[in-house]
This record gives sequence, C-alpha cells and structure tokens, in this order.
Amino acid sequence: MRAVIRRGGALVVDEMAPPVAEVGQVLCKTLVCGICGSDLHALDHYDHMIDLTRRLGGFSHMRKGADTVFGHEFCCEVIENGPGTEGRLKAGTRVVSIPGLITPTGFETVGYSSRIPGGFAQTIVLSEALLLEVPNGLAAEHAALTEPLAVGDHAVAMAAMEADHVAMVIGAGPVGLAVIASLKARGLGPVIAWDFSAERRAAAERMGADRVVDPADISSHASWSDYAVPATRAEAFAAAMEGRAVKRPVIFECVGAPGMLQALARDAPAGARIVVAGVCMETDAIEPLAFITKELELRFVLGYRPDEFAAALHRLAEGQTRYAETVTQVVSLDETPAAFARLQTDKTQIKILVAPGR
Amino acid sequence: MRAVIRRGGALVVDEMAPPVAEVGQVLCKTLVCGICGSDLHALDHYDHMIDLTRRLGGFSHMRKGADTVFGHEFCCEVIENGPGTEGRLKAGTRVVSIPGLITPTGFETVGYSSRIPGGFAQTIVLSEALLLEVPNGLAAEHAALTEPLAVGDHAVAMAAMEADHVAMVIGAGPVGLAVIASLKARGLGPVIAWDFSAERRAAAERMGADRVVDPADISSHASWSDYAVPATRAEAFAAAMEGRAVKRPVIFECVGAPGMLQALARDAPAGARIVVAGVCMETDAIEPLAFITKELELRFVLGYRPDEFAAALHRLAEGQTRYAETVTQVVSLDETPAAFARLQTDKTQIKILVAPGR
Repeated sequence: MRAVIRRGGALVVDEMAPPVAEVGQVLCKTLVCGICGSDLHALDHYDHMIDLTRRLGGFSHMRKGADTVFGHEFCCEVIENGPGTEGRLKAGTRVVSIPGLITPTGFETVGYSSRIPGGFAQTIVLSEALLLEVPNGLAAEHAALTEPLAVGDHAVAMAAMEADHVAMVIGAGPVGLAVIASLKARGLGPVIAWDFSAERRAAAERMGADRVVDPADISSHASWSDYAVPATRAEAFAAAMEGRAVKRPVIFECVGAPGMLQALARDAPAGARIVVAGVCMETDAIEPLAFITKELELRFVLGYRPDEFAAALHRLAEGQTRYAETVTQVVSLDETPAAFARLQTDKTQIKILVAPGR
Repeated sequence: MRAVIRRGGALVVDEMAPPVAEVGQVLCKTLVCGICGSDLHALDHYDHMIDLTRRLGGFSHMRKGADTVFGHEFCCEVIENGPGTEGRLKAGTRVVSIPGLITPTGFETVGYSSRIPGGFAQTIVLSEALLLEVPNGLAAEHAALTEPLAVGDHAVAMAAMEADHVAMVIGAGPVGLAVIASLKARGLGPVIAWDFSAERRAAAERMGADRVVDPADISSHASWSDYAVPATRAEAFAAAMEGRAVKRPVIFECVGAPGMLQALARDAPAGARIVVAGVCMETDAIEPLAFITKELELRFVLGYRPDEFAAALHRLAEGQTRYAETVTQVVSLDETPAAFARLQTDKTQIKILVAPGR
C-alpha cells in the first residue's frame, strides 16, 4: 500500500507493507484523514516528543530513527474483520474510532506509532470494540472531523461554564473553532474569538462567534467591560458593594505557543478561568505572581472521553454544528507533504484532509 | 517612635516620626506583629517586587531607595480616633484589621508602603471602618495570627473541596499550617502534610494532619493509592469500568519556590487540582505538556476576603483552631533583624512575632 511516511525528518510518499489485523482488530481502508496541528509538531519535533512523553511517565510507540505514519483524525471503511472479532460491522461499513488500538500490552495511539500506520496510509487496523458506524448520509469528509470536534467538546465540558460566564477563544484554528462550535451548540456565551487571520475570524463567525477580534487592530479589541466582566478584584469588589450583576470570564487558550500563558496572565481579568486546550510542547516561562495577583485558574485539558467522541459524531451527523465548514482542502497522498508545509505558513488554510485513495 | 526600618537593603532599628491619623483613621499602638515569608522576600527583593507589581498593572506604595517599615500581621490597641471618625472603639480597645488603609486615592497596603509604617513600628494608623475588636480574652499574640490564618482559610475555600477529596499540603510553614488548620476545622481530609523539617512536621500533626511525610525519606512517602486516588487517567478509567469508588486529589502548594509547579506536574496524580498558595516571585519554568497530559488544574490564590478575615479572628477567639501553637518566638524590635535572618535558615522557627513595646 502507499502512505505518507515520516522518514529521516521529512515526509515521503512510499510503498509499505499493509498492516495485519490481530486479535479483535479490523482491517480498514482509509477514506479521509485530517491533518492536525500535533502532526505538524511531531514532524519537526519527533525526538523531543518521544523524550518528553517518556520523561512524563508516558509510553510512546514512536521510535527514534524509525518510519512513522501519522494521522489520527480518520474515517474508514471496513475491509475485513480480523481473528477473534464478532464481525459486528460488515465489509464496506464506514466507521470512525478514537485513535487508540487495544493491544495485549495496552493502548497504542493510532497515528503516533512506528509499529502500526496512522490514517495517512491507505489501510489501517482498528479495534472492533471501539468502532462507531458512521450514521447514514454523513460524508466521510465530515465524519473525519469527529476527532477534532470532540477535542473542542471536551475543552468546553471541562470549562464547566455557567449562565453568567463570558467566553473568549484565543486562536481560531481547528481547536478554537471546535470550541466555538461546541459552545454555541450548548447555548453558552457570548463568545468572542481572537485571531490574526481574517479567514479564521470569518470561520469563527461561521461557527457562531458573537464577536471576532483582530489582535493587531486595537480598535477591534473586545473590552471585558462591554460584557459586564470586572477587570480587577477592586472592580469586582465595587460591583458587589453596589449590587451590580457581573459576568465571569472563561478564556480558551487554543494556540499552544510559548509565551501565551504569561500573556494571558497579563491581559486576563482577575479571577479568569483559563482552559488550556492549545498544546505547547516547549518549556515555557511564567511569572507565578502574575497569576497569583489576579487569582487566575488554569485548567489544562487533553483529548476527550469515548462518550464525548461518540456525541461529536452524532452532532455532525445530525447537522447540529457547522464544524464541517472548517475543511478548506482535500488532498491526495502525493500532495500531503506540501499540505503540511502549507499549513505551517498559510493561515487561510484551516483543516486539510488527506484522501489516501485519490 | 521606634521601628524596624528597611533602609539601604538591610533592617535597622531607629527612631522615626510617628504616623498621623487622617480622616477616618485611628492611631494605634502596635502590640504584636508577625513576620511573614513575604516580608523576608521583600527585604531581599524590594526593587523587584516594586517593578513586578507595577508591570502587572498594580500599584506599589513602596518607593525605591526610601525607608519602609514592614509588618501586616498585627494586633493593636487604639490610642486615639482621628478626624472624621465615629469613635466606635475607644482608646485601649484591642483591634485587628485587614492590612489595607483606606485613603482618598484608594487602598494602601499597611506593611508594604514607604509612606505609612507597618506593624514593626510602635504606632501605626488604621482605617476605623476596617477595625475589628478582638473578642475578650484572646491574647494579642493569638489575635495577630488572624491574618495568616485567613490566608489558609481562603486557600481552602478556593479549593472548593468535596467529601471525596484527599488533601496533600506541600510545605508546613505558616501558610501550609494555616491550610491544615482550616481543612481540619471544616472536617475535610484526609490531610497529608509534606515538609523536610521534623519540627514543621510535628507542627503539622498538632494542626491535625492525618499523616506527615519527610520528602527526604522515601519510606515515609504517602502513596496516592493508599487513599484510593488513581495516579493516572488509565487507572481512573479502569476504576470506573470496574465500578470502584475513587477519591480525588487536591494539592496545596505552600512553598512558593521556583520549580515547585513543574515538580508537582511530574509527581501529581492525573486530574489533580493544585491550589497555589505559595507566592513565587521569580520567573518560573514549566512544561505545559506535563500539565496537559495529566489534565491538571492550577488555582492561584491570594489573600482573603474581609469576611474570611473576620471568621478567622472568631475561630481563634473561640478556640476552634490550634493555629496559635505555630508561634515559636516573640521578639523585641532590637531582636527583629536577627529574627528575620533566623527565619531564613532555621526551619525550627515557624511564626516569630515582634512586640514593638518590649
């Protein structure tokens, strides 16, 4: 089969042996698979990612110097049920799955392993127990968005927002847009979205953001006071004394670059809850006193629960989200290395899907 | 009057003009005033503290190069009500107050100002509106503990603990001990306390800690599994699948040194809520991914609300806390510079009170 392979620090398109379904596993044809920001990071910082995972007590199935096929946002079609399966879904059924393969030694992340291919290969193996059938009529291109949408749903669930919260979403890339879509689906808000890119701000509006802000244009900046959020502890105290109703701030950090947390500590209103959904893989510098002075709260979030993943699939199938509009391109395997490069620089691109069968 | 003055980077005991009560203010005799860890920090990092406060949008009443009298954990006696006061408390009444002076231009922190003296002076001025009469029979030495006890109470309130939480308190200095005392007063726990000092571990036990740990002695380490707290997300998931009841971890960081947050990210169980009560004034390095992987939560806390301050006073007066046992020494003004030095190195000392009238 053909695949986009990370080899020697670059992506190459090459032939490789197809994977073999083991006990409880199902061989699948990859229909489409989204490129995630983490894939871009893993391409450039592969060894660092392995070291960091291990140092933090985790286990990485990526091996230094070995070929690896990324891709964890996939929609597939069942080819053949492997040994020891129930045959619950017959050949031809379109499926999605959380990107975790159940193996005799534990979970293995599909898309971050040097042993089994991820979704940028023409065939992959998945665990039958985790397969979800794509509801009739939902396009594979949209079903493949289940994974990133679930990331946004989970971040919103972890934010535990209430009716008096105002949401600010920093960064309207795939994660930020999923957060906005999830907030609006739950009737939460108002939602203010920040991004330097006009195209991404437009996408944020399509997801339902109530206001978009260009950080470079000071005149567009949303003021917390516009939303009755006190900026300082003194303002909150004064409002309480005067019996004025106030709103509380929740900020979703969806950029994941070094310096973001400290910048938020500087700019956030006192008492803000900051949900950290952006994945910063470098060491970062913070001044704890900046967070202490404002009594900020940082909630670091990652991934989603299986039930959140299933709910995201059904939300897409039932048309309860406009997240499908984040797809800006569908490319072939041959076009994938260039698409990775494009995503690094061209912010008009949001979600590029790879269709290995093209 | 006499005072301990920070002058040219060192503490000197000298004569200075007593403060004058302005509108709404009361002139008071300082009976005792506790030395706080922040005072030690302000002595050595005075200019940095001013710069940092300003850079974070706050206002510091400390001026570079100027004399400053620290001391914000005081118990006083009313000498004379100033102009425009109601005369609510007559001369001789023993009082405490949150260390904030109401002035025509806003709050001014008593103990961190170059304009008005803090509690390491023989007389200070306080705002009549903020004075709380010390209930009959409570010793001034114990009333002076209202402030640090309120800090612990506030941290515990911000932790929003529930019945299924297990508390680990890192650092059994004045803040950590106040947290332990507050947890036990509310019936929360179990409470596990960590400190390198045997004396502080003993103090933690006196405050009611259910278990004390010497970080240097691996055999004493508390294992989260002893308290039914899953260490990883996989363990939590397995417990949920098996229907096993689990407990949730809350960690109180009461050290405030660089590196503590990253160390906690490494050692904390997945999903831990970390209440950051220690005040780290240096820039700190963290690896966000370490926090993300475990979905940790950081709640930075500072100070207390006026009602928490009043509640702490009454808790001390009604004997509902053993926090009074944290006092290890009472010194004169002349002995205060040496006491500051002793607190930096001698961990058998916990709370040293200064009695300016001695």
